[in-house]
Amino acid sequence: MNNKLDYEGLIKPGERIDELNRNNYRIIQNTSKFCFGMDAVLLTGFVKVLPGERLLDLGTGTGIIPILLEAKTKGSHFTGLEIQEDSADMARRSVALNGLDDKIDIITGDIKQASSIFRPGSFDVITSNPPYMNNNHGLINPNETKAIARHEILCTLEDVVREASRLLKMCGRFYLVHRPFRLVEIINTLSAWRLEPKRMRLVHPYIDKEPNMVLIEAVKGGKSMVKIEPPLIVYKEKNIYSDEIQNIYGF
Amino acid sequence: MNNKLDYEGLIKPGERIDELNRNNYRIIQNTSKFCFGMDAVLLTGFVKVLPGERLLDLGTGTGIIPILLEAKTKGSHFTGLEIQEDSADMARRSVALNGLDDKIDIITGDIKQASSIFRPGSFDVITSNPPYMNNNHGLINPNETKAIARHEILCTLEDVVREASRLLKMCGRFYLVHRPFRLVEIINTLSAWRLEPKRMRLVHPYIDKEPNMVLIEAVKGGKSMVKIEPPLIVYKEKNIYSDEIQNIYGF
Repeated sequence: MNNKLDYEGLIKPGERIDELNRNNYRIIQNTSKFCFGMDAVLLTGFVKVLPGERLLDLGTGTGIIPILLEAKTKGSHFTGLEIQEDSADMARRSVALNGLDDKIDIITGDIKQASSIFRPGSFDVITSNPPYMNNNHGLINPNETKAIARHEILCTLEDVVREASRLLKMCGRFYLVHRPFRLVEIINTLSAWRLEPKRMRLVHPYIDKEPNMVLIEAVKGGKSMVKIEPPLIVYKEKNIYSDEIQNIYGF
Repeated sequence: MNNKLDYEGLIKPGERIDELNRNNYRIIQNTSKFCFGMDAVLLTGFVKVLPGERLLDLGTGTGIIPILLEAKTKGSHFTGLEIQEDSADMARRSVALNGLDDKIDIITGDIKQASSIFRPGSFDVITSNPPYMNNNHGLINPNETKAIARHEILCTLEDVVREASRLLKMCGRFYLVHRPFRLVEIINTLSAWRLEPKRMRLVHPYIDKEPNMVLIEAVKGGKSMVKIEPPLIVYKEKNIYSDEIQNIYGF
């Protein structure tokens, strides 16, 4: 693969390098801080990026979404915005490790200020796997890096949606993965910011269980009419992923 | 069954009597006008009516929802509101046929005026299987009775939601069956009228197909947090209903 760097000097104490099953790409993670979850991977299986499109990932963490989407699509450029410098630093080193410096930029910055960091109306596609838990739900993780990734400590759902709306071109697409229990708030917030939900998919651990994730595509300025897709089932039996999940992961 | 009337004089030309598989109840329908669909039956499988509660069905057609819910629950009283006199008349005769005159009232009237026909804040539960199609979607049926039942000719989604909100007690429950393509509009409208969606279920013809119905429970004045239930699958294989559907129908 084109001029990848050596491992030497590329990883720090406590970090490890994981294979991504796409283009032989790898990612640097630190288990004591934050590792990407199935949510991010499923979002990359749901997102559509057309050839030549420019994408922004809000709250990119260790850069899993731009790295996977660079592998899976023909988008022209990918940017990840991340407020936590240690995560952004891992993301940048993963980009270098995969030789992707001219395709992916990792910017350290605050989602709440995103529309002053980037030019409004300048992206075709925006993705986000934001913190799911607000003050009403869930225990706060005492590890700060994980807590910021999981709880709405530094940004709320409304911050993410507002900035996505400002940064997208007209008819641009916003892709979100979130928890189903917040679906009503998600839909109301998207509608309020003129991001019309047009496609939705619920992810169920098993076919007879409640969904634990929701994937949404919203179009800036779109008309009201949503297509709900067949359920995405994670396990066909205990410990065995469904064919679709295996395909999304690239096993 | 308690003092049911004779068939004689009870049905009119073109009408037929169908079995409901619940309490030996039967229903009068006219295939050239409108017959109840799976939507109404699935709604009665989703609705919860507690002992002693009073229920109103907005746009009751031939009365299928109050009749089935009288059979399935211990609600104290059921009212059906229907604007089309020929449907309301069939509904009234079905109520008589089943000996339910003291449990079910059928009122001829307009959903848009419902909160002036009944006392606001007076119902525990409101149900509706309203017209699904608005001006943007679907062909208009040339048969007027069917067209009024299927298209938003005489009332809109907002009319139904507004009147339900006015007529429910605080914390009362509104149950709706509708088409998934209008889910965003449904959620926005419910939220605007302080009917918070708390439970939702998508109905898929087959497990790998898109849903074609959505069942929603909304609570007047409820907090924002929705529970999405496992998918309801209609057919386990071609022409064979799933066990759950058979159970809802009472086969």
